[in-house]
Amino acid sequence: MGIGDDAALVRVTPNRDLILTSDLSIEGVHFTARLHPPGSVGHRALARSLSDVAAMGGTPRFALVSVAFPRDISRAWIEEFYRGMFDLAARYGVEVVGGDTSIVRRTVMIDVTVTGEVARGGGLLRSGARPGDQIFVSGWLGQSARGLEILEGRLRGRRSLNDTPEAGAAVNAHLFPSPRCELGQWLQRTGIPTAMMDISDGLSTDLTRLCEASGVGAKVHAERIPGPAGVSPKHSLRLALHGGEDYELLFTVPKRRLARLPRGYRGVPLRCIGEVCRSRDVLLVAKDGTQSALAPAGYDHFSKGLPM
Amino acid sequence: MGIGDDAALVRVTPNRDLILTSDLSIEGVHFTARLHPPGSVGHRALARSLSDVAAMGGTPRFALVSVAFPRDISRAWIEEFYRGMFDLAARYGVEVVGGDTSIVRRTVMIDVTVTGEVARGGGLLRSGARPGDQIFVSGWLGQSARGLEILEGRLRGRRSLNDTPEAGAAVNAHLFPSPRCELGQWLQRTGIPTAMMDISDGLSTDLTRLCEASGVGAKVHAERIPGPAGVSPKHSLRLALHGGEDYELLFTVPKRRLARLPRGYRGVPLRCIGEVCRSRDVLLVAKDGTQSALAPAGYDHFSKGLPM
Repeated sequence: MGIGDDAALVRVTPNRDLILTSDLSIEGVHFTARLHPPGSVGHRALARSLSDVAAMGGTPRFALVSVAFPRDISRAWIEEFYRGMFDLAARYGVEVVGGDTSIVRRTVMIDVTVTGEVARGGGLLRSGARPGDQIFVSGWLGQSARGLEILEGRLRGRRSLNDTPEAGAAVNAHLFPSPRCELGQWLQRTGIPTAMMDISDGLSTDLTRLCEASGVGAKVHAERIPGPAGVSPKHSLRLALHGGEDYELLFTVPKRRLARLPRGYRGVPLRCIGEVCRSRDVLLVAKDGTQSALAPAGYDHFSKGLPM
Repeated sequence: MGIGDDAALVRVTPNRDLILTSDLSIEGVHFTARLHPPGSVGHRALARSLSDVAAMGGTPRFALVSVAFPRDISRAWIEEFYRGMFDLAARYGVEVVGGDTSIVRRTVMIDVTVTGEVARGGGLLRSGARPGDQIFVSGWLGQSARGLEILEGRLRGRRSLNDTPEAGAAVNAHLFPSPRCELGQWLQRTGIPTAMMDISDGLSTDLTRLCEASGVGAKVHAERIPGPAGVSPKHSLRLALHGGEDYELLFTVPKRRLARLPRGYRGVPLRCIGEVCRSRDVLLVAKDGTQSALAPAGYDHFSKGLPM
């Protein structure tokens, strides 16, 4: 109700908490006209917010989409942009109920707000990890960063990078990521995780955030971290640790609940990569047992020079 | 809960519908660095969404604030911007629970999402006006447009415009508008209006929208429309009809409920300016009885050339 009105009027399921999240997607920061077709821009702009809802174990319900378009943008661009976004919304049962549109001089700017729902008091936070909990990641890490490398290589004429199924999967993971909404909801219902978040800025950055929020540290094992295929092991690990925008889930499980967690959920592997420690350090353990500090080196918009 | 998490987790009052609205504020479109101090930019960006909630008779609860700042913006600008916004939020009991921040090359871009609540099934829409209903506006129209004129005149050195209390009130109405949240909630509780919206793009544009949504027409009387003082009557009427950003409420009342509507609410006048007609025309009646079509000539972002 209320579409075309001043605001949208929607109904929330009784006894559920409301999840609210907004994410900006800005040309030149989050995407570029050279690398990202308009359908991917629309898909990715919505995926970011859907992943935030997934990270709390919630079900996404409604979206508000605000977009500032430059005056000289083509009708075809706008249509493909919305098609990419609405296709993803339909796939996740999300209804776009409002937003705003404006023109702007140069840069396309998108802000997507998604509301979700979760059982009252049942939303999963970053702050619940306890020493001894095992650290899990879903799916595959570094895929999006690998896809970006391949897209940039193609621009420079290196078409050979395009030829393997692994390369195609990585490019697809970058352009059309699948937020883990079903997995997040299922994990929330099981009551197995103590803490959860999505990996949007790279494992090194996001694991550090989870540890800070929980007041703990972590040890993760390099050889257990699932990196992209088709590159050197060293590069694969770097992509997996620091590459952003994978939108996989990072969660912690107490030892007594480990037996209840399967090795995968609907084709998505759930891998144990390490454990939560009392000491505040976040450490990477190499195959030979050597430990080194895992400094956050993923993407952080704040580190890019905003005077705050 | 959940601040600093992937999303905000909030609780909605049982048996209430949720109101969702997002509004963009873009430098060069909605404000300019020359005319609007940063505190006003923050205030106005939030006021737009609060007014949308007021227009449905809802109570605003939570806000998500996404902002893209140019890299070279000063810390002082950012602080005053947020102070202006947070002061207004506090005044209306709104909690800012999340959002996003990014940098951008040039233009400041803000998107504010506000959630509100209204009694289940009780949200006021634009579509409820019926022939014979009387048309009301709250407060004073054209004040914001008059304030903008004065600010622009000051830039050109016409300081004398600044000297009257009327001028000061108009400038204040432009820089720091007060959305009619209390009035909207009160009107909703009384059950008096059949339709309601806010006047954000000018009476001529917004009354036309209300009539279209309700499938009706309207006749409004020029001499009943409250325009700004200190200018010629003709110019005052033009400002009142077409000036945007007043954030007053426009609502319709069936004749049988007229006796229940007071002449004002907490110091804000409620004036009858005309009535709803069966014919789809929107007409302006001059003092001498002459009728002319009231074409929408307020601000409309879509008319500014977006290829949609």
